[in-house]
Amino acid sequence: MDVNVLLFSEFETLDAFGPVEILGRLEKCQLRFVSANGGIITSRQGVPIITEAWENVDFSGILLVPGGQGTRHLINDNTFIARLSDIALQSQYCLAVCTGSALLAKTNLLNGLKATSNKRAFDWVQSVNSDVKWISHARWVVDGKFYTSSGVSAGMDMALGFISDRFGIEKAVEIAQGIEYIWNSNKDDDLFAKQFK
Amino acid sequence: MDVNVLLFSEFETLDAFGPVEILGRLEKCQLRFVSANGGIITSRQGVPIITEAWENVDFSGILLVPGGQGTRHLINDNTFIARLSDIALQSQYCLAVCTGSALLAKTNLLNGLKATSNKRAFDWVQSVNSDVKWISHARWVVDGKFYTSSGVSAGMDMALGFISDRFGIEKAVEIAQGIEYIWNSNKDDDLFAKQFK
Repeated sequence: MDVNVLLFSEFETLDAFGPVEILGRLEKCQLRFVSANGGIITSRQGVPIITEAWENVDFSGILLVPGGQGTRHLINDNTFIARLSDIALQSQYCLAVCTGSALLAKTNLLNGLKATSNKRAFDWVQSVNSDVKWISHARWVVDGKFYTSSGVSAGMDMALGFISDRFGIEKAVEIAQGIEYIWNSNKDDDLFAKQFK
Repeated sequence: MDVNVLLFSEFETLDAFGPVEILGRLEKCQLRFVSANGGIITSRQGVPIITEAWENVDFSGILLVPGGQGTRHLINDNTFIARLSDIALQSQYCLAVCTGSALLAKTNLLNGLKATSNKRAFDWVQSVNSDVKWISHARWVVDGKFYTSSGVSAGMDMALGFISDRFGIEKAVEIAQGIEYIWNSNKDDDLFAKQFK
């Protein structure tokens, strides 16, 4: 199954590369790094990545949308949001980390569905689209083909949760152990919702 | 303080970008992505990164050495190991994640010092240099300016431990909370050493 990682200027490094580490350990998983125009995309922490332009990419697999400072600008880019809507519709599954869920919410594809986001950006994310059923207390949320997670490192827990749902919990545990990661496997247990209430 | 991230073909994605996410949140921290010859370096999970050649880089700050499949080849590359020794000597601090500690061990700079590595690659890492005091039960180990961690995700705990040592535990906790990461802050508590015994 292909994983298309949608990158943009000032995306948050771990939002993308935490799930990439985990999904990249699936057998026969082809990862692609995609952006609106291709070329070099630099993360918030200064990592320069080579990307393909999204025009000619096959989006039938998994779409991964990170969050980060760059989302604050992109939310007002109608061309970007229209194309995101298009590729999210084509994708079998959509995984959004942190404020990546604000971008997905802006497409209206989450309307009437449950979703979550970073707990410290929650007011802003909610303001993007009030027709989404925003869940303020969740490590990650699943509704149909849409997976959304809390901030940054929660994307790793969600990626393991996605693997558990699709390929069995044994596979998720095997990958977590392979990276010596203590998986927070209960999507409803959200330590940070409590802290930032 | 500058952080120089030494990349090579088939480095493990999260070994580098977990600590990059964390160290990149320090104020006035300049991250550089460096390799032997510069140009595009691709991680084990297929992430293509643009790097600077190490020739003209100022290595007086923090050196971060990830592990991964690529270390198995590099361990026998005498030119690489000699240059790594050179830049590790210049660096104020050296942080190695997972089998990155095998590369550091090969320079002989860890001789007589305590260090750790990935628990499932431990026999191989020990075989690289038996003059290192390898610690089989540790999330991460500090000896002088050298920080070494267990496998992959342990690099994030070590990066937070480094920040705690240098800038205070409040800063480490602030960064962990900022990325909604449940920090395993006890470097001597190693769940995976028990599992893979």
